Amino acid sequence: MTSTTRLVYLGPPGTFSEAALMTLPIADRAQLDPLPNVAAALDAVRQGDADGALVPFENSVEGSVSTTLDELASGDLLQVTAEVVLLIRFALLVRPGTVIDAVRTVSSHPHAQPQCRRWLAKNLPDARWEPSFSNSEAARRVQAGEVDAALAGAFAAPRYGLSVLADDVQDVDGAQTRFVLVTRPGPPPSPTGSDRTTVVLFERDDHPGALLEILTEFAVRGVNLTRLESRPTGAGLGRYSFSVDCEGHVSEARVGEALSALHRVCAEVRFLGSYSRADGRAGVVRPSTSDDAFHEAAVWLSGLRGDTRARSTDGS
Amino acid sequence: MTSTTRLVYLGPPGTFSEAALMTLPIADRAQLDPLPNVAAALDAVRQGDADGALVPFENSVEGSVSTTLDELASGDLLQVTAEVVLLIRFALLVRPGTVIDAVRTVSSHPHAQPQCRRWLAKNLPDARWEPSFSNSEAARRVQAGEVDAALAGAFAAPRYGLSVLADDVQDVDGAQTRFVLVTRPGPPPSPTGSDRTTVVLFERDDHPGALLEILTEFAVRGVNLTRLESRPTGAGLGRYSFSVDCEGHVSEARVGEALSALHRVCAEVRFLGSYSRADGRAGVVRPSTSDDAFHEAAVWLSGLRGDTRARSTDGS
Amino acid sequence: MTSTTRLVYLGPPGTFSEAALMTLPIADRAQLDPLPNVAAALDAVRQGDADGALVPFENSVEGSVSTTLDELASGDLLQVTAEVVLLIRFALLVRPGTVIDAVRTVSSHPHAQPQCRRWLAKNLPDARWEPSFSNSEAARRVQAGEVDAALAGAFAAPRYGLSVLADDVQDVDGAQTRFVLVTRPGPPPSPTGSDRTTVVLFERDDHPGALLEILTEFAVRGVNLTRLESRPTGAGLGRYSFSVDCEGHVSEARVGEALSALHRVCAEVRFLGSYSRADGRAGVVRPSTSDDAFHEAAVWLSGLRGDTRARSTDGS
Amino acid sequence: MTSTTRLVYLGPPGTFSEAALMTLPIADRAQLDPLPNVAAALDAVRQGDADGALVPFENSVEGSVSTTLDELASGDLLQVTAEVVLLIRFALLVRPGTVIDAVRTVSSHPHAQPQCRRWLAKNLPDARWEPSFSNSEAARRVQAGEVDAALAGAFAAPRYGLSVLADDVQDVDGAQTRFVLVTRPGPPPSPTGSDRTTVVLFERDDHPGALLEILTEFAVRGVNLTRLESRPTGAGLGRYSFSVDCEGHVSEARVGEALSALHRVCAEVRFLGSYSRADGRAGVVRPSTSDDAFHEAAVWLSGLRGDTRARSTDGS
Repeated sequence: MTSTTRLVYLGPPGTFSEAALMTLPIADRAQLDPLPNVAAALDAVRQGDADGALVPFENSVEGSVSTTLDELASGDLLQVTAEVVLLIRFALLVRPGTVIDAVRTVSSHPHAQPQCRRWLAKNLPDARWEPSFSNSEAARRVQAGEVDAALAGAFAAPRYGLSVLADDVQDVDGAQTRFVLVTRPGPPPSPTGSDRTTVVLFERDDHPGALLEILTEFAVRGVNLTRLESRPTGAGLGRYSFSVDCEGHVSEARVGEALSALHRVCAEVRFLGSYSRADGRAGVVRPSTSDDAFHEAAVWLSGLRGDTRARSTDGS
Repeated sequence: MTSTTRLVYLGPPGTFSEAALMTLPIADRAQLDPLPNVAAALDAVRQGDADGALVPFENSVEGSVSTTLDELASGDLLQVTAEVVLLIRFALLVRPGTVIDAVRTVSSHPHAQPQCRRWLAKNLPDARWEPSFSNSEAARRVQAGEVDAALAGAFAAPRYGLSVLADDVQDVDGAQTRFVLVTRPGPPPSPTGSDRTTVVLFERDDHPGALLEILTEFAVRGVNLTRLESRPTGAGLGRYSFSVDCEGHVSEARVGEALSALHRVCAEVRFLGSYSRADGRAGVVRPSTSDDAFHEAAVWLSGLRGDTRARSTDGS
Repeated sequence: MTSTTRLVYLGPPGTFSEAALMTLPIADRAQLDPLPNVAAALDAVRQGDADGALVPFENSVEGSVSTTLDELASGDLLQVTAEVVLLIRFALLVRPGTVIDAVRTVSSHPHAQPQCRRWLAKNLPDARWEPSFSNSEAARRVQAGEVDAALAGAFAAPRYGLSVLADDVQDVDGAQTRFVLVTRPGPPPSPTGSDRTTVVLFERDDHPGALLEILTEFAVRGVNLTRLESRPTGAGLGRYSFSVDCEGHVSEARVGEALSALHRVCAEVRFLGSYSRADGRAGVVRPSTSDDAFHEAAVWLSGLRGDTRARSTDGS
Repeated sequence: MTSTTRLVYLGPPGTFSEAALMTLPIADRAQLDPLPNVAAALDAVRQGDADGALVPFENSVEGSVSTTLDELASGDLLQVTAEVVLLIRFALLVRPGTVIDAVRTVSSHPHAQPQCRRWLAKNLPDARWEPSFSNSEAARRVQAGEVDAALAGAFAAPRYGLSVLADDVQDVDGAQTRFVLVTRPGPPPSPTGSDRTTVVLFERDDHPGALLEILTEFAVRGVNLTRLESRPTGAGLGRYSFSVDCEGHVSEARVGEALSALHRVCAEVRFLGSYSRADGRAGVVRPSTSDDAFHEAAVWLSGLRGDTRARSTDGS
């Protein structure tokens, strides 16, 4: 990406997505533009209007962001090349001078309200909550006088000329949101030793035990899962695809063999990328599933087969 | 439940929840009251203000209804005693006389919009979508002149004095929503031969392979799963509970033994009920996992143990 | 058993079987009689001519004693009630005065010869080996002048008027043989906390993965195997039964549930007994598979089922 | 192998091993020599004194031939290149003129006697059985007047000048013995579509579940086992190696990947060969584990990895 790099994010300005994007070095020398929803941000990348999109993926309180999962699981293939994890802290933003007794309406993105449910019930039991497209949009509506308060990151206050009436209003401290940077498909970033791989698995047929088989393909090769979501395929209740994160990088042998195996047994394996983990944790690799162990086994197998070539060349 | 039975549902009147509730015989002789959200409906049951609550649980396009899953997975224990599956068809409701070119704003519950995304993009590319708490609320807002059109069930039109401008505007035909009737805990309804059991499983610790172990406990006893959702526990990214539906009834031996096993290996098994399946499908029971096979094995085991009692009494 | 207890063993006198039997307290006040082969010893028990039979079961060098396995796996049911493990040391027994250069023929039971193969190759390269029904029989044949030397326990020498020409002639030190005391079926001995259970499993049909399923029934309930032998069923190559030892006692819940499960999935589970381990090792019991955990789960399940009875009574 | 090919077999002449060897085309133009035992036959190959050895491997009534298993599992590596399966029929051979009432002693290899146990009990209840090194040796002893009758194949009668007093004296019709042709290691014979692969697996450590893991490595890749034997390693009771036959050929991807995986997780995988099955049965190959499926998956994986090379070259 050159100096003309254009990155889009789930806007408007002042969202956690913007805050997340700004933690990435690439953002320093790129043009950053908000788009109104996840689909629009991803489509901008698909159509070449942007080089990357930063969108929320998973929240430790509310779970996966269904729209992101579903948009990545269908349409033209995209690729995750980086992740960012932010600690989520909410503030109650009001117009300067507003006192708490005067707050009759509170707005936020629907994902924010449940994270502050208990605080609201205790401190604003009579206030009415109204959904907004985003927490920033809620802040804008406060500014415009349409609602009295917004749940949003404190960093959004100056942008909309608001005051922080209460900080850390989230019920659970330590809530995190994971964001992903999405680009058009290409060779994945090089492995760092602390990588994650994301795929979507579509079952060949919906038989009992299909998920057990899928998990066994990972487990037998020592590949640990860090997230698994079932998502309806739209083909009726009881028909699912599986959105999966696992430790490791597609270039590692254990991950590659597991993905190849899934490619054989699933109707489709949609590879969404291998990328560096935000938490920097090195995945656990058993000695028997290290790249060295795989390489040594491949050489041994070639010997058995009587290959004169130095090593196996058929992927098995 | 007597003639004074009070059932609540996710309102306002005119929602699919009300339509689902009215398919249950028990609704004929009960007082039906809307409540503004799932939490309020379930809390009414918990507090004894209502005898049951009908709430959406799972949608074949959008997936699980997170609020319902999470409200059932925490707080005082509740029990699912029945399910209803409705085919979901959306209509575009407008004030009588409105033509399509005049529609500039469309509103609906956030779950409805993605199900009609393609239709909206084609037929109302310039209309702005606004979230409402429910599709019925959107219809009410149309009636009040706040928005121009609502995505809702056609059955909501007369209630709000609206017209159906377009019917079947959903992108995917055959979309279904599963609703559940929730009561306070008690002995489950008797088995019917076509039953489903719902539990929430909390892992003892978050080790790789935990889900594989859980699935094996079901599989080894021939209990098929019909839904599995991971949900964050709120204790950080990567920590999950599992919301699971399986075939069969807790009173059946294979289901009982599987649940007992999970009770041994999980930190908590939250039993949410065994109830008749809406689709009337009989679960697949292998001969080796029928109640007869379990009974015969228990008698055999008692013999081995030299029990003079007629049969095993220790659950193993 | 009373003072008239009669125990038989794989004779003739001077075998390791006799030595093993004499380690059991019950042998002190019983009449001990040799019988010429395993089948005869077991049949004596079956027909009521003896109260128990002590026979070899497994050798750490040569493996299972096929005859014993097969005799126990067919015919009228018998029960293992105790085991004895002896360290196996072989001596070369000769007539007094015989020097090694004069040894032209050596005899022993066919199981003994391979255990001394290397010693024989080095020290008696030109001697011819002849099979005998037992090592004691070989010693008797030395006494009778039919062969020059016998491989047998040194303890057999005085009984046949022989000398020990070389001791510890076994190739591998530490070789052990496990013997079992077999009685007619009855309630098993009480659990000691260090128990072993022996069963023979006959597959329902010979499908790939049958053994994997069998092992999973044990593993999922935390029951460790200590021996597994496949034995042909006689119905053609590729058709097997499995002779299995596992840790624990049939009266323990995890073992009971595993056996019940196998009873459901196998064509036949032939229970050969639960008995105290000779090595005194306590089996490894995971907290989730302790009797307490099973009991607690059974009580919990009864509650779910709305049972007014104190606990589950159906073995699941 | 040239016209000077020398093949040895478990002698003496007249054994089933000789009969088995003579069914192989290679025997037509080779010099065939008996050796007195399996170890001698295999050592002749190891030392270059013979080009191949034909030895018994497995019997459908008596099970594996322990000596063969153990000799192949240790010492210098050998390779199985062909198998022969013979239907085993025993005759009672006597000196011409002998009537059944005159038979007081019967001899055979110890493996033969149990296969005729019931016939002997009924027809020769008072005859004494004596072990011989082989059935042919028993026949020779009849000829020499040392015993009265031999259990052996009827084809051995003319060789020793004996008569068949009774034919088909085996208790179970259809008993089979599988023999293997063993050579020095080298590239395996080309796959035929109906192949078998034999390996010996040594566990890395003796943990519960080790065998379950081994079986899973085969099962997950759709490789069916046709034989599994545990054999003591000599390192104490409870320590085993596993002798395994599976369907398919090492050159096939699913077999190769399974063996490679075992190479990674086992202390040692001793490859004993891939060779054509005597029964001509094609192994069952699921579409997801065909060579085509593996190849297609390897190409797909290379694409994911951004390889410009045509295909994966690292065996994963």
